[in-house]
Amino acid sequence: MTLSPDVPAPAPRPAVRRRGPGTARPTAAGRALSVLDAFGPRHRCLSLSEIARRAGLTLPTAHRLTRELVDWGALERDSTGRYSVGLRLLELSALAPRGLELREAAFPHVEDLHQITRGNVQLGVRDGMQVVYVEAIRARVRAVTSRVGDRWPMHATGTGLVLLAFSEPDFQEAVLRSPLERFNPMTVTDPAELRRTLAHVRQTGVAVARGQITLPDMVVAVPVRDPAGEVTAALSVVVETEGARPRELAAVLKQASRAITRALDPRH
Amino acid sequence: MTLSPDVPAPAPRPAVRRRGPGTARPTAAGRALSVLDAFGPRHRCLSLSEIARRAGLTLPTAHRLTRELVDWGALERDSTGRYSVGLRLLELSALAPRGLELREAAFPHVEDLHQITRGNVQLGVRDGMQVVYVEAIRARVRAVTSRVGDRWPMHATGTGLVLLAFSEPDFQEAVLRSPLERFNPMTVTDPAELRRTLAHVRQTGVAVARGQITLPDMVVAVPVRDPAGEVTAALSVVVETEGARPRELAAVLKQASRAITRALDPRH
Repeated sequence: MTLSPDVPAPAPRPAVRRRGPGTARPTAAGRALSVLDAFGPRHRCLSLSEIARRAGLTLPTAHRLTRELVDWGALERDSTGRYSVGLRLLELSALAPRGLELREAAFPHVEDLHQITRGNVQLGVRDGMQVVYVEAIRARVRAVTSRVGDRWPMHATGTGLVLLAFSEPDFQEAVLRSPLERFNPMTVTDPAELRRTLAHVRQTGVAVARGQITLPDMVVAVPVRDPAGEVTAALSVVVETEGARPRELAAVLKQASRAITRALDPRH
Repeated sequence: MTLSPDVPAPAPRPAVRRRGPGTARPTAAGRALSVLDAFGPRHRCLSLSEIARRAGLTLPTAHRLTRELVDWGALERDSTGRYSVGLRLLELSALAPRGLELREAAFPHVEDLHQITRGNVQLGVRDGMQVVYVEAIRARVRAVTSRVGDRWPMHATGTGLVLLAFSEPDFQEAVLRSPLERFNPMTVTDPAELRRTLAHVRQTGVAVARGQITLPDMVVAVPVRDPAGEVTAALSVVVETEGARPRELAAVLKQASRAITRALDPRH
């Protein structure tokens, strides 16, 4: 791990739309979704009583819903009686057009990028006011632990800055007016400075950030357009700042981004 | 595409536990799951009335549940009003210990295998009576379209034969007594012949199959053990039969499998 000891590894953030644990939704279907919401990056394996508490449900209700979700495959129960997320959700999530389908089109190019740069490569899309990684390849020895399914605030990630820069102005302002978390002393949270950064990203088509989440790292990110020309995703590489060549990385990323756009074209 | 024209590209099979479309579950939570069940590899994008019909629900019920699932992020609604699977499910599925977490440990080794063999590489786990791919890297020009989240019957895939060979005898017999689909003239569906194959896989630690799903292909598969020694997954490579060297492939696969076991060890 090359993380500075004063920089805690930040956990992916929950969705804005998700309610806090303990606030059950009013409908029956909503209560089943609350059971799923009880699981998170720091809560991958839960007992029934933990599920009930985190979902804000009584134990009998949690028991009934958990059993139904296990039967369907959304959850699995291990030999010690604890629950975790099941493979039926992996199977379903593979159908998401903005998820693994986009990953399919991008994969060979993402893999090339990883081979050429030996850095972490991320492909992110906007979801609510966050960016979600639909593909992530990690260099073998690196501090940044980006994973598929990770959700991050837009202001603190390269892919997020690109997606924000190419969003509608109203959406940009809504994000800039929301609470902007500081992950370390280098994270930019000043709306005026972020506005200047976004203008620069729009002008150059590249976002370059140093130490926004983990101090020794540099991220370079570019937009990925769909065949109609809309920015549909962002592609980034994370390397160590020392010795990094952002211009070269940007050129390689733009090349890969164009290849992904071509692969997304059904006439391809 | 190198598929023989008489071999239709088979779609991944639905889970055994999944009900057919049009048979709604009795509970409210179950009805919400029926809405999700309406989506599949051939039904990635559905209108509200298609959802209602496939889930066996009235239009108002389908409308209410779909809205709730969109609000939560399980579904997304596009500009034409059609629905598809949303990114919240990708985020949740990343928490599955047997899904993307296993993929994380395996990824560098799967990538190496793909680089060395230039074939398709699959990492599969058993779920119900099928195998689900938790990782799949495709060679750029190949007929087999294995994808993450794909679900296949065990008798017709290399990973499935390995997982079946190392399953409890009762489970093996249950699978061999179930209807065994024939994907092409080479698919082995005779229980006695499959029993001999499974004994051979247990003895050698390798499954080799030719043309079981797509005719010109050979698959070589090996078990992946967890640090406690249990077979937890299977790793396979698909290459063209012509010029394939199954012994060499098996040796490389066994090497990669051991590396994955080490990566799964928390003391690693």
